[in-house]
Amino acid sequence: MKREALIQQIRQKKSFLCVGLDTDLKKIPAHLLEEEDPMFAFNKAIIDATAAHCVCYKPNLAFYECAGLKGWMALEKTVQYIRRHYPEQFILADAKRGDIGNTSEMYAQSFFEDLPFDAVTVAPYMGEDSVKPFLTYPDKWVVLLALTSNKGSADFQLTQDANGERLFEKVIRTAKTWADEERMMFVVGATQGSMFADIRKIAPNHFLLVPGVGAQGGSLAEVVRYGMTPDCGLLVNSSRQILYASKGMDFALAAQKEAQKLHEEMASYL
Amino acid sequence: MKREALIQQIRQKKSFLCVGLDTDLKKIPAHLLEEEDPMFAFNKAIIDATAAHCVCYKPNLAFYECAGLKGWMALEKTVQYIRRHYPEQFILADAKRGDIGNTSEMYAQSFFEDLPFDAVTVAPYMGEDSVKPFLTYPDKWVVLLALTSNKGSADFQLTQDANGERLFEKVIRTAKTWADEERMMFVVGATQGSMFADIRKIAPNHFLLVPGVGAQGGSLAEVVRYGMTPDCGLLVNSSRQILYASKGMDFALAAQKEAQKLHEEMASYL
Repeated sequence: MKREALIQQIRQKKSFLCVGLDTDLKKIPAHLLEEEDPMFAFNKAIIDATAAHCVCYKPNLAFYECAGLKGWMALEKTVQYIRRHYPEQFILADAKRGDIGNTSEMYAQSFFEDLPFDAVTVAPYMGEDSVKPFLTYPDKWVVLLALTSNKGSADFQLTQDANGERLFEKVIRTAKTWADEERMMFVVGATQGSMFADIRKIAPNHFLLVPGVGAQGGSLAEVVRYGMTPDCGLLVNSSRQILYASKGMDFALAAQKEAQKLHEEMASYL
Repeated sequence: MKREALIQQIRQKKSFLCVGLDTDLKKIPAHLLEEEDPMFAFNKAIIDATAAHCVCYKPNLAFYECAGLKGWMALEKTVQYIRRHYPEQFILADAKRGDIGNTSEMYAQSFFEDLPFDAVTVAPYMGEDSVKPFLTYPDKWVVLLALTSNKGSADFQLTQDANGERLFEKVIRTAKTWADEERMMFVVGATQGSMFADIRKIAPNHFLLVPGVGAQGGSLAEVVRYGMTPDCGLLVNSSRQILYASKGMDFALAAQKEAQKLHEEMASYL
């Protein structure tokens, strides 16, 4: 998907919500376990209930791999379902991959040829040649980890070099030379608050994928205050808060309400 | 697997070879494509041909994911086959995962519960809480990326902080506080030569997983010179050089010869 199409969708819907499909068999409503493919049945219901409120779906690969063959099948069906019924949605593989060139090529093929994802999250530790293979597909994106939402983000990402530049700043500054804002986004956790202002100094126009609102405690108002650009420039993710709003028969309706709540808050900022 | 059992296997076989199962349908001998499961047929032949020469198998997850459902099935069969027929082998999932805690837990479950791997490679960028979930299983290992074999390793891993400590050194020093040498190894590329001496100053006893001998140009003699410990402390990986030694009917024999060559060189160092 082109950047312009993403921005247009955000303007039309007045939403920059990304729904994280962290589908966990241990957490989905019990009645779905009788379905032939419980993970897909759950996802389909969640997607149908939330598509009007969001602009992006982000399946987290761990949850599908964890279910083995059945998980992989559910993932394929989910991505194809979104592509077919909601072609306007941006689809992001949250995989956090990154390996030597020939291996990253294989991952890129998985996500961009075998499956119709628009983007994949990539870890920067191995540097340029581990990221570049994901950038060889037209209109496909790399979403690079920069400053993550978890406590451990402080262990290495905040390490300052001799000039006072922090690692996440170096990652963003360096990665900007690999691809422009039409092909690259950065992951910045919602829990990072005013750090968004520092990031906007280096990447004034790039889209940021922002996990950590909801279960992880980040504030949407703060993210918007420090991180929003004239093009919006934000995809804010919510996973557990939406998916598991109810464990009962009404789970899809409960998910819709949670998504709508975020949508309304987002609309007020746009 | 316990560290002591790994060391004993290395002593008995006089080998510290890890065979990387980077099984690529585009590179395996054409006659295997007629098999019901070409990836598994190839792996089985490679494993039977090389098991006497190596102490570890390392399937690279990218290659299996890339083949979708069939790839995932081939991976499961491969790991089960090694476990059943060569129970002395250390089995390492080269997956380079690492995500927020609840997601890393799912990956850990995939590799350590659903599949009988001994270890998984993990990327350090997201810090302690992204690595710890892999350390909750007895006798299972984390193999943490430290200084990789590729050109891009220089982009961030060599960044010095204000005290002159490089990022890979900080990663090793910090990760040593998360688990001891019974549960943690570090990835150091064979192309890094004398840097092994720097690493041994911080991690004198840890096992190092060393990719990059062969196709990537690293020297086994240099790795041994700077990196070997009294317990060996090395698992040196070769993938393409062994797997694709021949594309003909004799591929397994050709692989065996390549593995034997490395085995003999390793025996001379032990």
